[in-house]
Amino acid sequence: MDPDLWLYIAVGAGIAGLLLALVFSRQVMAAPQGNDRMKELSAAIREGAMAFLRREYSWVAVFVALMAALIFVLLDYGRPWGAIAYVFGAALSALAGFIGMRIATAANARTAEAARVGGVRQALPLAFRGGAVMGFTVAGLGLAGLGLAFLVFVKWLEVDDAFSVLTAVGLGGSSIALFARVGGGIYTKAADIGADLVGKIEAGIPEDDPRNPAVIADLVGDNVGDVAGMGADLFESYVGSLIAPIAFAAIVFIGRDFQAEAIVFPLAIAAVGMFASIIGSFFVRPTGNKLAAALNRGTYVSAALTVLAVLGLSILIFGDIEGVDNAFGLFFAVTIGLGVGLIIGRISEVFTSDQFRPVKEIAQQAETGAATVALAGIADGMRSAAYSVIVVAAGIGGAHWAGELAFSDGGIYGIAVAAIGVLSTLGITISVDAYGPIADNAGGIAEMAHLPAEVREATDALDSLGNTTAAIAKGFAIASAAITALALFFTFSRAVNLEAIDILQVETTIGLFLGAMFPFLFAALTIKAVGRAANEMIEEVRRQFREIPGLREGDPSAKPDYTRCVDISTASALREMVIPGALAIALPLTIGFIDVQALGGFLAGALVTGFLLAIFMANAGGAWDNAKKFIEAGAHGGKGSDAHKAAVVGDTIGDPFKDTSGPAMNIVIKVMTIVSLIFASAFI
Amino acid sequence: MDPDLWLYIAVGAGIAGLLLALVFSRQVMAAPQGNDRMKELSAAIREGAMAFLRREYSWVAVFVALMAALIFVLLDYGRPWGAIAYVFGAALSALAGFIGMRIATAANARTAEAARVGGVRQALPLAFRGGAVMGFTVAGLGLAGLGLAFLVFVKWLEVDDAFSVLTAVGLGGSSIALFARVGGGIYTKAADIGADLVGKIEAGIPEDDPRNPAVIADLVGDNVGDVAGMGADLFESYVGSLIAPIAFAAIVFIGRDFQAEAIVFPLAIAAVGMFASIIGSFFVRPTGNKLAAALNRGTYVSAALTVLAVLGLSILIFGDIEGVDNAFGLFFAVTIGLGVGLIIGRISEVFTSDQFRPVKEIAQQAETGAATVALAGIADGMRSAAYSVIVVAAGIGGAHWAGELAFSDGGIYGIAVAAIGVLSTLGITISVDAYGPIADNAGGIAEMAHLPAEVREATDALDSLGNTTAAIAKGFAIASAAITALALFFTFSRAVNLEAIDILQVETTIGLFLGAMFPFLFAALTIKAVGRAANEMIEEVRRQFREIPGLREGDPSAKPDYTRCVDISTASALREMVIPGALAIALPLTIGFIDVQALGGFLAGALVTGFLLAIFMANAGGAWDNAKKFIEAGAHGGKGSDAHKAAVVGDTIGDPFKDTSGPAMNIVIKVMTIVSLIFASAFI
Repeated sequence: MDPDLWLYIAVGAGIAGLLLALVFSRQVMAAPQGNDRMKELSAAIREGAMAFLRREYSWVAVFVALMAALIFVLLDYGRPWGAIAYVFGAALSALAGFIGMRIATAANARTAEAARVGGVRQALPLAFRGGAVMGFTVAGLGLAGLGLAFLVFVKWLEVDDAFSVLTAVGLGGSSIALFARVGGGIYTKAADIGADLVGKIEAGIPEDDPRNPAVIADLVGDNVGDVAGMGADLFESYVGSLIAPIAFAAIVFIGRDFQAEAIVFPLAIAAVGMFASIIGSFFVRPTGNKLAAALNRGTYVSAALTVLAVLGLSILIFGDIEGVDNAFGLFFAVTIGLGVGLIIGRISEVFTSDQFRPVKEIAQQAETGAATVALAGIADGMRSAAYSVIVVAAGIGGAHWAGELAFSDGGIYGIAVAAIGVLSTLGITISVDAYGPIADNAGGIAEMAHLPAEVREATDALDSLGNTTAAIAKGFAIASAAITALALFFTFSRAVNLEAIDILQVETTIGLFLGAMFPFLFAALTIKAVGRAANEMIEEVRRQFREIPGLREGDPSAKPDYTRCVDISTASALREMVIPGALAIALPLTIGFIDVQALGGFLAGALVTGFLLAIFMANAGGAWDNAKKFIEAGAHGGKGSDAHKAAVVGDTIGDPFKDTSGPAMNIVIKVMTIVSLIFASAFI
Repeated sequence: MDPDLWLYIAVGAGIAGLLLALVFSRQVMAAPQGNDRMKELSAAIREGAMAFLRREYSWVAVFVALMAALIFVLLDYGRPWGAIAYVFGAALSALAGFIGMRIATAANARTAEAARVGGVRQALPLAFRGGAVMGFTVAGLGLAGLGLAFLVFVKWLEVDDAFSVLTAVGLGGSSIALFARVGGGIYTKAADIGADLVGKIEAGIPEDDPRNPAVIADLVGDNVGDVAGMGADLFESYVGSLIAPIAFAAIVFIGRDFQAEAIVFPLAIAAVGMFASIIGSFFVRPTGNKLAAALNRGTYVSAALTVLAVLGLSILIFGDIEGVDNAFGLFFAVTIGLGVGLIIGRISEVFTSDQFRPVKEIAQQAETGAATVALAGIADGMRSAAYSVIVVAAGIGGAHWAGELAFSDGGIYGIAVAAIGVLSTLGITISVDAYGPIADNAGGIAEMAHLPAEVREATDALDSLGNTTAAIAKGFAIASAAITALALFFTFSRAVNLEAIDILQVETTIGLFLGAMFPFLFAALTIKAVGRAANEMIEEVRRQFREIPGLREGDPSAKPDYTRCVDISTASALREMVIPGALAIALPLTIGFIDVQALGGFLAGALVTGFLLAIFMANAGGAWDNAKKFIEAGAHGGKGSDAHKAAVVGDTIGDPFKDTSGPAMNIVIKVMTIVSLIFASAFI
């Protein structure tokens, strides 16, 4: 069949995903919103979230304009295509974030109301559908957008250097993702830590208590960080994982009979993955009390369908083409990628769920105090990172072997399509992940609207489950980031005509040292940023408790000024995101213009330590959080015991780990490689 | 002049260092030991330390025998030279550790007595001389031993493959160092945390109180970790830094006119560095109250003299030899190395001394609780690691440039001699470092012998100063480890005839991932080992308080069983050191036999993340420790305040960071490279 047909199928699959998102969105919006108090709270959260997004986008717009100008000057040689593609990618990513945020902030009160009326069984599908709107919007916009850009730039306009233009779409997504992750991550944890430290510890009022002036900012933060940030991040991963093999095939397979097929194959996989996700989403239905099983069923059904479909695709597309040694090689590569994602997700689950030993041991260490909790979490986080790297290393070896099996010089292509394997079922993966913050928000609203205790228990059950599914999804995201970045890195080396990146050359060694260093610097900067932003929040909350009479005592006439807290968090998060974000773009550019070998070393170094730190921080943070919840559920003396206080310390250390620095690292790894790839021709 | 003359000068300089150690040793032993109680305590510490050393050496002897057999089988081809050289190196290192431990455990009570009689002014020189015995023994044995091995194997026996035999001397030192660092590090922190958690927190008795059954084990631990462990580590660094350029010159400069000179130049630098250190040691005299100035003066005088002498040496040795383009290049390389060491030492000082902002800020964060203390320390530790890497990267570039200036293809040789620059004044560097645990022990003895409070204040002042000087010395040690490992790595690549270590080859990439992963795994294993060993100690201390009537209340007839605590710590430390230690030897061997490219990637990855983690952990730990001391000195509410409790948590997290995992990482980096280098011929 004509390979170009797959472009249309990909665009169609993307649109199908968007339609499903629309259907789910209508179902969510049709659900009842609950009483006036709930509506009011939901509106306050939505307003805060939208205000943040507006201000973030206006900062990012300046950055996008600057980058577009840079692309136009350095790469476009008088035609605007690269700059246009870049702005298109940025706009798609921003749109996905906006839609996700709208639906998440609409689904929160409705989920609380569903929990009130029908308990967990009614709340789970609603929260999941809210997440699914986000999931299928991100995947749909990514696939349809990239397919469309391919048709426009490659097929219709036939621009020179078309695949570099396509890469610019990815860089557009990366730019938004970088700032959304960093800014959103700082916002969410500044608000969370600020609210907790003054509210729970100093003023002695419970979590999500309406008297706490930072409580709305905290609930806004869940959306800003976990919904908009995560969505933009995965949009970028998804598009990046598709671009890496497309660009590689376009650069390296010139003159080979299977080039056209190798170029469209990634889009074909994504298309079947989209359909598989759509089918999988209908399998998320709670049966009995097995909540986790309901969510996991969706993921596993989608994955299994994708594997089967890719087997067919490999034969259909590469079956009898000259130069293809073994079409099964490509099927193996994609399957290996999917396997790596599942195993790393499983490692994350084992290290962050209270069903397994690590979290239980951390909780046990709480009996001897906060220091031993911290040490146990650090050691387990590092261990989980080490194991994940072993899996990724094995996966890289396997995918390379599979690629070579398919055709000669196909090893890197094998690695690149393995990354798609991890991400092909993105629609369902995000759905399962984004549902967490919706449940979390629903719990907050239930608390603040003084709904009966069972409602809070139902949302808490959903939320706790969300912690583990989120950890699994983060494992997926990080695994895909590492493999995608590696594939982009290899593509970069071909794009700049590097025959080798030789560590024995001193430039490369220096680059390697600096690259390995950067994730440490980045983590330090973002942790410090959260600290500073949280301090500003703490000052404001203290001020309100001091100056508003009757607030602490719960006098109904005393109204906290929620908006000011939201404003402070917004302003400080956006200010703090500038330096770490700008460094991630400026460093590879600067080093690339000095020496391309050094940039190769830099990217490799950043990739390995960034990956290690990302998993370490995500899993240590997740483990501390669940160890605390495990104690709150009654172990080791339960809530209020000394062990609980020690576990709270661990949880607070983990906050910026798992929700700011760790996830941001993920995007930093990719953004630096994609910046290098797109400016490759300017470096040489 | 005949290059061989320098061999004799080096041996002579080594012997001069040993003689100075003997003189200082007599001065220390001549000082009064104090009252019977002090003698008794000192004897108990000495006994415990010696018991540990005996048992450690008997485990290590088995390991050394196995490795010697392996070397004999794989490398010696029927002649025993490699195995003999290996055992010789191991014996020298063990001897240095033994002598250092003897003198440190003799100097402790004497320092306390000197503080009682004459205060800080009398105690400082005594503690310093105790440290200097260790310092000059390590440097003297290293230099004289390596010089002697050179004369025997290269000049007199003229064995084939002589420089590989010389490398075996280094591996002997590395083997001892690896186990001394890991085992000693676990011992010292298990005892420390065990003593603190039960004593201070549960039983409510002060630090170093004689009622605490773990108190002697804790004091033994200072010697086991900070004296014997550190001494073996630096012995290995020193010998390794000399071997790297010698082996490189022997392999690469074949047939060039300056080869003989390039081979002896490292020994010549070490010889002048030794004489400079001897002179510098006489400048350590307290004038007024400036204690830090007294110690730093010794270091700076030695460094300045060495720079001058190396300038002369470069001209004298390379002045008019065919093929040398610019003899100053070598002077520049050594000076750059020394500069890197001083700057990294300074970075460590700024990040760990309470005179500067980072420690003050961590103390400030204690006001909002333990979590913010932990986060601030982690962020600052990462920041300090990032800055140190930038300095090392610049130093590598500079030394490479300087080496190329000296002669063509001389860049790597420049990097190798830069590492000697950092270590050339080792005698004085260790003296300043090893004095810390002596002061610490003196304080413990003063407390337990119920000496007047002023005595404790004097030893505390010495000890607190020791924390910062130790951090500086650790900075030196880590900087030299990174550069030495890099030089050994380059030498390894030449030894296995690798033209390039290309990250674009998938074997190298996989190696790089696994190598970068290993330091994380190693850190996790050692942190967990400390936790387990500390738990055993806690159980024992609790048991004694429960079962020995009147112990907690201070009944004079109730005697705690100190010996049992010492035994438990010894047994668990030695058991726990086996797996991480064995992995560090087995992994490079295994990977090397599979694929040499992959081993290249592995070593590079381990080097960069190992270096980052080593500095991160050392400086975060030092900063937490001093932030706690800063609060104890009266800031933020002083001892007993909530801020103090939060700072104690930070300090306890930092304990295994700075005294177990961090320093052990340092040796792991080097040991893996030297293992690879020595078995290079077996891999290919």
